[in-house]
Amino acid sequence: MSTRRRFLQTGLAASATLSAAASLSPRLFAAGQDTKKLGYALVGLGRLSTGQLAPALQKTEHAKLAAVVSGTPSKREEWRKKYDLGDHVYSYEEYDQLADDDAVDVIYIVLPNGLHAEYTIRGAETGKHVFCEKPMANTAEECRQMIAACEKAGVKLGIGYRCQFEPHHLRAIEAVRSGEIGELRGLGAGFGFTMPADADPDQKLHWRLDRSLAGGGPLMDVGIYALQFCRYITGREPVAVTAQTTLTDPVKFRQVEETLGWTMTFPSVLGDDLPEPLRAQVTASCVTTYNFSGFNQGEAFGPDGSVLLKPAYSYTGLKGFVKGEPMNLDTPDQFAVEIDAFSQSVKNGTPFKCPGEEGLRDLLAIEAIYKAAETGRRTEVAKV
Amino acid sequence: MSTRRRFLQTGLAASATLSAAASLSPRLFAAGQDTKKLGYALVGLGRLSTGQLAPALQKTEHAKLAAVVSGTPSKREEWRKKYDLGDHVYSYEEYDQLADDDAVDVIYIVLPNGLHAEYTIRGAETGKHVFCEKPMANTAEECRQMIAACEKAGVKLGIGYRCQFEPHHLRAIEAVRSGEIGELRGLGAGFGFTMPADADPDQKLHWRLDRSLAGGGPLMDVGIYALQFCRYITGREPVAVTAQTTLTDPVKFRQVEETLGWTMTFPSVLGDDLPEPLRAQVTASCVTTYNFSGFNQGEAFGPDGSVLLKPAYSYTGLKGFVKGEPMNLDTPDQFAVEIDAFSQSVKNGTPFKCPGEEGLRDLLAIEAIYKAAETGRRTEVAKV
Repeated sequence: MSTRRRFLQTGLAASATLSAAASLSPRLFAAGQDTKKLGYALVGLGRLSTGQLAPALQKTEHAKLAAVVSGTPSKREEWRKKYDLGDHVYSYEEYDQLADDDAVDVIYIVLPNGLHAEYTIRGAETGKHVFCEKPMANTAEECRQMIAACEKAGVKLGIGYRCQFEPHHLRAIEAVRSGEIGELRGLGAGFGFTMPADADPDQKLHWRLDRSLAGGGPLMDVGIYALQFCRYITGREPVAVTAQTTLTDPVKFRQVEETLGWTMTFPSVLGDDLPEPLRAQVTASCVTTYNFSGFNQGEAFGPDGSVLLKPAYSYTGLKGFVKGEPMNLDTPDQFAVEIDAFSQSVKNGTPFKCPGEEGLRDLLAIEAIYKAAETGRRTEVAKV
Repeated sequence: MSTRRRFLQTGLAASATLSAAASLSPRLFAAGQDTKKLGYALVGLGRLSTGQLAPALQKTEHAKLAAVVSGTPSKREEWRKKYDLGDHVYSYEEYDQLADDDAVDVIYIVLPNGLHAEYTIRGAETGKHVFCEKPMANTAEECRQMIAACEKAGVKLGIGYRCQFEPHHLRAIEAVRSGEIGELRGLGAGFGFTMPADADPDQKLHWRLDRSLAGGGPLMDVGIYALQFCRYITGREPVAVTAQTTLTDPVKFRQVEETLGWTMTFPSVLGDDLPEPLRAQVTASCVTTYNFSGFNQGEAFGPDGSVLLKPAYSYTGLKGFVKGEPMNLDTPDQFAVEIDAFSQSVKNGTPFKCPGEEGLRDLLAIEAIYKAAETGRRTEVAKV
């Protein structure tokens, strides 16, 4: 327990430092003398890269944008000019040439989920470290292949779980693990948003509705935040799950689920290797959806009080409460913080908080949830 | 829809009136000239009767405390003096003599759940109307017998669902049904409290832990509020459920569940008789427990916003929000309001909002939830 507390406090302190760094002007780092910044290649120039990652890479202390990979010539040209990328601009056909680009230290996979495995494995084969957006892949089996490929290549693999570096979430973990609400007993979490009315799985723009590219529906994309919340608040893996889905638009949601409600049971946060029935001591109740907004929260209950994050998973404006008292914390640029954390792990050869195994554990839970929804049966979550 | 809106508005107006009446001094009604007040016999003088029902019956406009039934001689004497009850004080052996007590119009069953059926049926046979606390009984079969007995005797049967008369809940129903948040898609609800550390099912005081008396654990006692919330917000019956339980204290909870998480799917609030899979259009995610406090909320989500009640099910101090805006409503004496509503139904021969069938519907859902928890299987909810 004391180790955990130390770890958390270190984590909080590190976040605070990074947050302060992130607020400094990017120009401080733009003069070329900062030779320690790792070069990142963004693979896939969709909304996340454009709106979040490229701006974050202007703020990072240990990382900078060094290259991009895109299938759209006009986008490549636009990014080359905007970020002064010179020759470090690639099509997907040229992807493997990243092996010879000395400006690139880390390949950041920002592609649709169904392409994560292939591009992570090929990325590892270039000898570069790989950072991959969540969900790690479409299946647990793909996750295992990705982990094996990075191990074989001797490169680091990190998964983009920004909330694990965010001060409100770190404070929530600390509050629960330090016993401020007594021993954790219950969790409620949910995240969803409304898919545009005209979204269609046959449109490339809406790949999240295409099962082959997305691997599933809102559970893969946003429900994973609620799953993560329950996992890192407990620090344990779910024992078993139940799930149900609902549907109002069978055309839009012809390939993936629309709304999914699920329960999970977790072992005690404190006990280990408990016999049945004590193996399951924490109940979690969750929802995810592509059909309404506003469910954006994580709540943890113990005999002595509760911890609430709401909104919990947005890019900005998070709010948190411990026993009803506001946390009064700022939300830093979460992407800058996580990229810097991965970069430091790479530079120092130290373990990264969210390695491939962390992504695999989510996929094992997600596969159990989908199986439970499909079969109607309580489903045990497979072990790593 | 317009009928529903009218109904709701009438309901709200009625609540407001009753709330105003409830705030008047009891002395206004104490001079004996109020011959229209129905006489209530409280059966079972536990904490609810002592702390809530007797005080409420001093505020009611259409009801008054007329008699009590208790197995404890000292309690009978105490109540006789305190409420000037004269001869209208009975032991359980004398229960059936209520038939001959002209001061009694309504028998209010406040006994442990496992005794509701017997005392409701015997109560009906006295020719008095019966008002019964929730949960209506231990099983749906008992509910059916209670309904049949009251029908046969030609007396009214009402179930004590106070929240269905409470302004925050009525406003939440109105907001959802009138489309203020768009068509309802998701629900989250939970209610629980911490059982005292020394509670034991073998102690009479803790009958809630005794399966024969309680019928089940927190789901029967407090989870039923979350179930009710989902049912009256949708105005529909759940299609199917999944459930899981967790356990940390196998001694205290050797007869009933400790914590239970469940999901429910509901038909659309607007559509009727939809084919599968569209039959299930609303996802609900719920928790109940005897092992932590603070989960005391009901939330409804649509594409245009959400409605939140938190705390939702307490006796006082409820708070509600529609699309983030506070409802700013007072919480009346919920027991006075529901007793007056039942009394008016009896006096006027009009339908009561929460008849026996309402209690039966909850028990059908509860039986499905317990079956789902026991078998690990998605379980369809039986029809009335």
